[in-house]
Formats: sequence, structure tokens, C-alpha cells
Amino acid sequence: MKKTFALTILLVTSACATAEVTRHPLPNNSTFPIARAVEVTADTVLIYHSGTVPGPADPDAERSSREYYGDTETQAMSVFKRMESSFEELGVGFGDVIKMTVFLVGDPELGGRMDFRGFMNAYTKYFGTEEQPNKPARSAVQIAGLAGAGMLVEVEVVLARP
Amino acid sequence: MKKTFALTILLVTSACATAEVTRHPLPNNSTFPIARAVEVTADTVLIYHSGTVPGPADPDAERSSREYYGDTETQAMSVFKRMESSFEELGVGFGDVIKMTVFLVGDPELGGRMDFRGFMNAYTKYFGTEEQPNKPARSAVQIAGLAGAGMLVEVEVVLARP
Amino acid sequence: MKKTFALTILLVTSACATAEVTRHPLPNNSTFPIARAVEVTADTVLIYHSGTVPGPADPDAERSSREYYGDTETQAMSVFKRMESSFEELGVGFGDVIKMTVFLVGDPELGGRMDFRGFMNAYTKYFGTEEQPNKPARSAVQIAGLAGAGMLVEVEVVLARP
Repeated sequence: MKKTFALTILLVTSACATAEVTRHPLPNNSTFPIARAVEVTADTVLIYHSGTVPGPADPDAERSSREYYGDTETQAMSVFKRMESSFEELGVGFGDVIKMTVFLVGDPELGGRMDFRGFMNAYTKYFGTEEQPNKPARSAVQIAGLAGAGMLVEVEVVLARP
Repeated sequence: MKKTFALTILLVTSACATAEVTRHPLPNNSTFPIARAVEVTADTVLIYHSGTVPGPADPDAERSSREYYGDTETQAMSVFKRMESSFEELGVGFGDVIKMTVFLVGDPELGGRMDFRGFMNAYTKYFGTEEQPNKPARSAVQIAGLAGAGMLVEVEVVLARP
Repeated sequence: MKKTFALTILLVTSACATAEVTRHPLPNNSTFPIARAVEVTADTVLIYHSGTVPGPADPDAERSSREYYGDTETQAMSVFKRMESSFEELGVGFGDVIKMTVFLVGDPELGGRMDFRGFMNAYTKYFGTEEQPNKPARSAVQIAGLAGAGMLVEVEVVLARP
């Protein structure tokens, strides 16, 4: 009886309880701080997080002014800080992000091109660092606009609960 | 023997068969009708649904005219009605949607801005209502265009089979 | 003892190890080569793949020239070839793609409209063919831009490991 029971535990464990996240690196030893692909085993609890937009950088500024939300880097930092507090409430962290979609609006001060570098300046403070080396699979695109005038950044993520 | 068998059922059940969807609310008691994040346990059957675009509002109108597809609210209602019939065939419902991505094209009649309010008028008939209180995690962005000229709305969803 | 053990295997198998991908066809016998929805059972290993952008069609051309990346069809072929080699390293194939998001930039030579037909010419060489009949759930949108000037195509996929 005991033996069967032990085997049962083993079977259930091996067949089901093996939640594991594998981060496949980019080819050619690329140092770009995203994963080529992230793989999750069947026993993974997934969290789909809504898109996060920035809060105002200067709430006293005029709503439609540049100062209200700030530039792309400022907005991206706001987005990641908001994520941080959301993640804390959910009991997860940046290291649990497996997939990210980055939506950037073109910056009028850059001739309408998205400020990809500005976004990366914020991103690299949270991903691929010494304390938080995990990198998500990611897509990043320039879109035509966001719900709030002056908003330049929306970031959506999927997480694997550890 | 019976006891081991019962334990086996218990183990398998607890380790595997616990499909559960948790909808984490937005912070600060926000009444905006989306979830901050939606979490699904490992035993969830996921359905990735293709983007849904509207059917013609007036099939007799000229293909490139405003009347053909109508405004954003009209198109969003068409999208949700098409989803409804697709969901029926798949044996799921709006309450099973866990993640939504909304792609809106700028409305020429609104100076090229997306008609976010028009979209929300349709959305709120299907999500966060008394009969269907479930809200998905969501991102909504303004894109540059869709495959069909005059199309202003495409909505993509992920569902958890109940 | 043997009987209990066998029952255990059966239970574990039926409750957990049933990874299965169901591709629901488009309605009305549509021949458009995407699935209406793709469903994966709980025991599916998922791979989230980063967005893939094209490599240069003519690396000797000027970086900002049309010749460098080529037109949409050329870029889409480059994207799928890059995916192919990534998939090989990951031990998966095009038939394992369950969800695709297509981001196309408007082609200046087509009055700024995306070259949907050009993209489809490449896509249909990899999906819905005799050798590879599997079709993903898909969304396709025109975005405002990509990180590299001249880039017109980014494709993101989710795969189910077979």
C-alpha cells in the first residue's frame, strides 16, 4: 500500500507539478536585453496583466501639455513604478514577467518617431540587471495613439506565478 | 486498496484539476470596467481567438463610404455580435474572456483621433453588467489602419473554457 | 496493488497528460488561411516567442534605403526564414504556432497603406499548405512604425510544444 501511495505521489508530481520557466536566449550571443522566447510548462499559473499607462509627471501642469506626462523615458519609468506596486499586491515581481508588449506613440519632439532609446533607458533598470536578470519575450511597436492625449507609453505583460 | 485509490483521486484532483480564474480588480476602487489582471490556474483550457473585425452596417452602401461600416460604436457592436455567435459555437461566453486587445483606427470625423468613448459604449453592454459582471485584463491602442478601408475596430481575445 | 497502480496511471493520464491543440475553423467555410480560434488543453507547454523583424535584403545598400530591407513581401519572407531557424533551435515548427500577431507598417510606395497582399504572399508559403496545413489564430494590424527605419514587418507568435 505504502509503495503504491509513494508511486502515486511520484506520478502526480512528475506529470503535473513541474511548473518551470525556460528563457531561451537571443541568437548570436546578442546582448539585447530580451529573451528570444520564453517557455512555460503545463503546470504554470499565468497572470494576464492589463496594459499599464503612466501617471502624470506633473499633475499641476496643463492636462494637454508636455509637462503633464513628460517624455517617453519619464513615462516608461512611471509605468514600471506603477507595475511594481501592482506586482507587489499580486505577489509577483519583474522576474516573473514572461511576455511583454510595448506600445509607444511617436514623440512630436522627435519628428513623430517613437523614442525607443528613451524607453530602453527605463526598461533596462528593471530587466536584465544584476539583481533581476530575467528577460521576457517582447514585441515593441510604434502605434498611432493612446486614450490620453500626451500619453506615449503603454506596456502589457504576462507573468508566470512562481 | 480503496483507501489508496481515494487518496489517488484526491491527489490528482488537488494537483491538477483546479482550473480557476481569478480577476484582480483595478486599484483605488476604480470603476473602469476592466480587470487589473486575470490569473488562471494550471488546469485551464485556453482559447486564443483571432481578431474580430466588423461586418458591414449597410452592405448596399459604397464599399469605401462611411455608411458601409459605420462609426466606431456601430462597428464595435458588430464585432461583439460576431463574437457572440462565434462564442456560442465554441461553447463559451463573454464571461469567459480573460484577456482582450482592442485595436482602434483614428476616426477621420474626429480629426483622426480614435473614438474611445464610442468603443466603450459598445463594450459596456457586454462586460461588467449585472448579467455578465466578469471583466477581462485589457489593452487598448490606436493603430494606423486595418485590412479593410473604413474599418475602425478589431478586437482580439483569449478565453478560459469554463 | 497492480490494479491500483494501473488506475493511478490512468487517472494521472486522463486528468493531466492530455495536451491537445484544437483548431476551430473560420465560419461560412471561409478559405482564408487562419483559424477562427485555437484551443489548448491544460497540459500544453507554451512558448511565447519575441517579435521577429526582418534581416537586411541587401546589407550593402544604404541603411535608410528601400533596398536595405526591401518591400513587405521580401521582409515577411525574411521574418519567416528567421523564425524557421529559431524554431529549429527550439525544436518546434510552423505547425506548432497557435497564435500570431502581425504588425505591418504602411508602405510609402503604396500611399502609406500596409501591403497586406504582400504579407499574405509570404504567409501562405508557411501556413495552410499541403505539407503544413495548421493555421494559427491571428490578428493583423497596421502600426505607425518599428524600431528600424525602413522596417515594415514584425511578427509575434505563441507556440504549443508538441
